Amino acid sequence: MRCRICGQPAVINMRHHKLSLCAEHYIPWFIKQTERTIHKYRMFTPEERILVAVSGGKDSLALWDVLLKLGYHADGLYIDLGIDGGFGYSSRSKEKVLAFHHSHPEANLHIVDIPGIYAESVPEVARRKHHMRRPCAICGVIKRHEMNRVALSEGYDVLATGHNLDDEAATLFGNVLHWHVGYLQRQGPILPADGEGLARKVKPFARLYERETAAYALLTGIDYIYEECPFAKGATSITHKETLTEMEHKSPGTKLQFYVNFLRAKEEGLLCNAEAQRVELHPCERCGQPTTAARLCRFCRLWE
Amino acid sequence: MRCRICGQPAVINMRHHKLSLCAEHYIPWFIKQTERTIHKYRMFTPEERILVAVSGGKDSLALWDVLLKLGYHADGLYIDLGIDGGFGYSSRSKEKVLAFHHSHPEANLHIVDIPGIYAESVPEVARRKHHMRRPCAICGVIKRHEMNRVALSEGYDVLATGHNLDDEAATLFGNVLHWHVGYLQRQGPILPADGEGLARKVKPFARLYERETAAYALLTGIDYIYEECPFAKGATSITHKETLTEMEHKSPGTKLQFYVNFLRAKEEGLLCNAEAQRVELHPCERCGQPTTAARLCRFCRLWE
Repeated sequence: MRCRICGQPAVINMRHHKLSLCAEHYIPWFIKQTERTIHKYRMFTPEERILVAVSGGKDSLALWDVLLKLGYHADGLYIDLGIDGGFGYSSRSKEKVLAFHHSHPEANLHIVDIPGIYAESVPEVARRKHHMRRPCAICGVIKRHEMNRVALSEGYDVLATGHNLDDEAATLFGNVLHWHVGYLQRQGPILPADGEGLARKVKPFARLYERETAAYALLTGIDYIYEECPFAKGATSITHKETLTEMEHKSPGTKLQFYVNFLRAKEEGLLCNAEAQRVELHPCERCGQPTTAARLCRFCRLWE
Repeated sequence: MRCRICGQPAVINMRHHKLSLCAEHYIPWFIKQTERTIHKYRMFTPEERILVAVSGGKDSLALWDVLLKLGYHADGLYIDLGIDGGFGYSSRSKEKVLAFHHSHPEANLHIVDIPGIYAESVPEVARRKHHMRRPCAICGVIKRHEMNRVALSEGYDVLATGHNLDDEAATLFGNVLHWHVGYLQRQGPILPADGEGLARKVKPFARLYERETAAYALLTGIDYIYEECPFAKGATSITHKETLTEMEHKSPGTKLQFYVNFLRAKEEGLLCNAEAQRVELHPCERCGQPTTAARLCRFCRLWE
């Protein structure tokens, strides 16, 4: 297996692209691919201020790194969820983020300490509210709310997350299995700001495989947390990822085609009753963020 | 495992319905489910004449059997494709159809002998036209053409096929993986006649698992051909079936929900640019059946 550009031994073979590259040529290829996705979906311009949600994992730190290398004004946001899982998941992931920020002093890092602000960790909220062992749904509500809050209050133009193609394909797969038309409508590499308090959201890695973001992180020496969130084990999205990975193995490019063809079909007007399904949003009485609920948004109801 | 109705030992456990039944109660349940699907999708009325495409396999013979038991005017159509596969696939499947017809003399059976009429078997056409080892695409063209031809020339109101839920879910899965919007639009348990030469097509088993049609055939003593078509091995649809079956195993009801939710989403107007994608049909210059091609339909071009 040789690098297609220089003929030296390759470090990665991307069967879906029929492309093998050495480390020296992989890194610029990866950065270029990210830039292409940013331009293709008009995610943001060099003048805009970007807030990157960083978890300490490979995807989000790689994204922050690439955006800084591309010269974008990209700051970080770390949300400390207070998850231990027997190995100090949150504190260890925070260390990785702090270390990355230490070596990139040109960028700002915002830290939101959930237990510090709200007097409860995410697992504690989940236990109190729903006696749930898996706090993933509530964790999603909290993260989305806090990301949006910081993006707006600190005057960022756009919120970027490290979702890769494997994440996007698995979400799409789940939405298709249940034919959640509303979710299908909103899924994509860019979700525009709604003009009433929801920041624009972008996923610059949406067309890059998880294997590719991992390779970038490894080859550029980014120190990230290898462990998944302890609550992720057994999640449906992981089962979907396994199914898709098996299909990808049999037929390279399956995930990419599945996702890209979906976006194309949507652009061509596949999902038409989406307008009818679009619900009315109004400001939450407590925090002011848009909500479909009558008085308080889902986040504020967590603390009732 | 006990029958939910009488408490006797059950012969089948349908986890997706949380329902176990003995043979005595399974057979009427299966017939009732088929009748419900016929009514739900307004497939046909007791006054209409139905042509059932029978291959000699469990699904199509079970369908013919159920329609006759329900008192419908249902005749059979067997298309001899001239496939041998080392074990006389076509001649053995024809024997099964003839034996079934022998014990149901109230119904008519039409037989179309492809090698007899067109002087070539289906594998021979495929080899001549495309040097293909797998004649499935061409076989589909020939079967659809001949089914439609007989249905119209013999004055049938509707053409019924034995496609079961596993078939439908696998087809849907393939169409979703590639986001074939046109195919998605046309897929469903009923395809109305177009008024210009395409017969109405219905799939009364579309909501019944393959396991359920097999159980019905076994329990009612229908003698069918166990072997798949020798060319089916390795087909993409079989890979999709395996993937879905694994998912069904982990989460019973996956296939049914996937299919039923798709139909519901479509009814609610999911696929909106379908009208735009609908192509113009005009009669084939040779056979008169509707085609998108300029002069001859795909079937007639096979014999050029």
